[in-house]
Amino acid sequence: MTTDDAAAGPSRRRLLVGLGVAAGVAVGAGADRAAVALGRDPAASGTGDVVPFEGAHQAGVTTPVQAHLHLAALDVVTDRREEVADLLDRWTAAARALVAGRAVGEHGAVDGDPLAPPEDTGEAVGLPPARLTLTVGVGPSLFDDRFGLAARRPAALAELPPFAGDALDPARCGGDLVVQACADDPQVAVHAVRTLVRLAAGTAAVRWAQLGFGRASSTDPSVPTPRNLFGFKDGTANPDGRDAAAMAEHVWVGEDDDPAGAWLAGGSYLVARRVEMHVETWDRSPLAEQEQVVGRSKGEGAPLGLAREHDVLDATAVAGLPATSHVALAHPSRHGGAQMLRRGYSYVDGADGLGHLQAGLVFLAYQRDPRRAFVPVQEALSRDDAMNEYVRHTGSGVWAVLPGVGPGGRWGSTLLG
Amino acid sequence: MTTDDAAAGPSRRRLLVGLGVAAGVAVGAGADRAAVALGRDPAASGTGDVVPFEGAHQAGVTTPVQAHLHLAALDVVTDRREEVADLLDRWTAAARALVAGRAVGEHGAVDGDPLAPPEDTGEAVGLPPARLTLTVGVGPSLFDDRFGLAARRPAALAELPPFAGDALDPARCGGDLVVQACADDPQVAVHAVRTLVRLAAGTAAVRWAQLGFGRASSTDPSVPTPRNLFGFKDGTANPDGRDAAAMAEHVWVGEDDDPAGAWLAGGSYLVARRVEMHVETWDRSPLAEQEQVVGRSKGEGAPLGLAREHDVLDATAVAGLPATSHVALAHPSRHGGAQMLRRGYSYVDGADGLGHLQAGLVFLAYQRDPRRAFVPVQEALSRDDAMNEYVRHTGSGVWAVLPGVGPGGRWGSTLLG
Repeated sequence: MTTDDAAAGPSRRRLLVGLGVAAGVAVGAGADRAAVALGRDPAASGTGDVVPFEGAHQAGVTTPVQAHLHLAALDVVTDRREEVADLLDRWTAAARALVAGRAVGEHGAVDGDPLAPPEDTGEAVGLPPARLTLTVGVGPSLFDDRFGLAARRPAALAELPPFAGDALDPARCGGDLVVQACADDPQVAVHAVRTLVRLAAGTAAVRWAQLGFGRASSTDPSVPTPRNLFGFKDGTANPDGRDAAAMAEHVWVGEDDDPAGAWLAGGSYLVARRVEMHVETWDRSPLAEQEQVVGRSKGEGAPLGLAREHDVLDATAVAGLPATSHVALAHPSRHGGAQMLRRGYSYVDGADGLGHLQAGLVFLAYQRDPRRAFVPVQEALSRDDAMNEYVRHTGSGVWAVLPGVGPGGRWGSTLLG
Repeated sequence: MTTDDAAAGPSRRRLLVGLGVAAGVAVGAGADRAAVALGRDPAASGTGDVVPFEGAHQAGVTTPVQAHLHLAALDVVTDRREEVADLLDRWTAAARALVAGRAVGEHGAVDGDPLAPPEDTGEAVGLPPARLTLTVGVGPSLFDDRFGLAARRPAALAELPPFAGDALDPARCGGDLVVQACADDPQVAVHAVRTLVRLAAGTAAVRWAQLGFGRASSTDPSVPTPRNLFGFKDGTANPDGRDAAAMAEHVWVGEDDDPAGAWLAGGSYLVARRVEMHVETWDRSPLAEQEQVVGRSKGEGAPLGLAREHDVLDATAVAGLPATSHVALAHPSRHGGAQMLRRGYSYVDGADGLGHLQAGLVFLAYQRDPRRAFVPVQEALSRDDAMNEYVRHTGSGVWAVLPGVGPGGRWGSTLLG
């Protein structure tokens, strides 16, 4: 594997893109193609918009939330474990290039052998890195009897239990693998997912995918809290992604969490839920009812009974909230102090055929153990949340988010060798 | 109607939002709500991102293409013509506020009577105007026997003929009304469409809707031409939206174009097509084949046989292109000089259930007369375009885009009184 792609600058390392492109093909096949810019240039748009790829943890978890999401769940279509390992190798190499704002392939963007497919699909040529992060995880289904991994499945990596009111569409659930692409430019996120999907041909295929926009929570308390499609600030009580101690306690898997899951140390668990929001019904309900449902004021976002958004919401203050409010039911004091790092997005997927817009939330939450975080919280919410009248969970997935990689490292090496 | 909403600054004019909100409700219902910011503040983000609402033509046609699209087609659900006129009144008033970055309703954003629904849905509070434009049109179906408008239908406002290879889904076609929202922030565009849909309750309902991103053409030659999801520059040959003479010739309906359609002078025709792009198949085809299909080089975007993207592509140069190339078949020299102003977007709508991403182009083209522009061009393309192997038209619509409004004006007044 290449060890320095992220720092390679304008030179183009040949990546093992597995597209059948022969080494050493002629560069440039005509005057017009010779003029092709050599991929995307991070320097042109400042270095501030490149998120470092390497680290003990993957980027895209505590990274301040970018403006756009493209989430893709894939199923492995081979029964050969080494092909899965090879895929993760190719993905790691491609991701190093993509997050640095470079095209995949030796020839920059769309240059190369005219008789071969272009190495890069080209739609991101000229676009900045846009703080792209690519975050990869493996689902519980990868640990069935296909790949001999059953003994290495951590107990926390289990299919989520059914919850009251679930309306899950199997075509929007699960997946052996997940890729979360976040970027400040949607075309950069789409290009990245498309590229990884293309590199997966023959090994894995898309099971479901979802675009999101508009940040439905913040991982950085220093920026204003965004609003979800119910018009409320969302993510006010999120832990601070910059707080390493909080992340170690609530988000990152520890070395001793589970003997079967030692390979996941430094990783995390991602729970994704596609939550339809019935905005037309919501929009017809009185302001006071909306606030009672949420447990916060709509304008300021303060917990009901307090004055300001960030006033401390301790167990005493929670006791003053409506018992069926979303904020009260989800509060860490009700769940042994459990916290998740949410980084959700809004979505709008056309119309529902009944005269309404189809809109909602791509709920994404990172946590150290879903059994102590998402599962008990969602059990409480699905039972009692006054918001249930306005939402419906239609998609779902849980994945173990692989540990980060250092120089020369590759995703999944601790699991697949 | 209000006459000065666009210039009203921080004061809040009561808009005829038709939401059953009584006039004169108490402002502020608690300390936390009293702190609500008074809507969105254009000044906070500079005035450059407010696109003027008033003019001889609607904004959103020649306006330099914003980053995001939310297109919604609606069907009228009343048979009372005056209710349609009232709806367009409400839409005009709301649009004046929305494009200026203000919330709808007297009380700013989400403040007001706790026993009534908030006047504004709130998710755009704190967001800048983001160059929002709202562009409204009426479809041929509005001129059936429901509203007594049959005699006023211009001959050019006819359902599009079937084209070879059409794979149209009726649930993505037509609509009595269309709203095109474009903005540099997707949440601003979504909020605007949601607001207009909400104001239409009881009068019109969403038939279909589509989000788009990434600009698949430019109306301003001074900025780099964007790339579509085939990785090619798209819109190179678009007319210059700043060229008033070209717009008068090709885009705006003239006073004498059609006696039945005198009400449309200063308006235009919008043709929308949802074009699925089979990107996986495309990505497997050789570079030379892709370039032969398009008729341009992939990197530079030059017409094949020429050196640079903007080298003049006259009839002689066209004769040197592959006869079945997209550029050759669509060239104005083949269609009596007809031109359209394209302002399309890319889309990605999840996965197709067969392991692929569902991606494509929201083709949007403005023109003076579809019978002399889109229809003959698409007839040629649908018959002979080499690109047909890679695309499929799944949605379609044509609308007369209403003339612009001046101070105190309202959409549709020339048609509905």
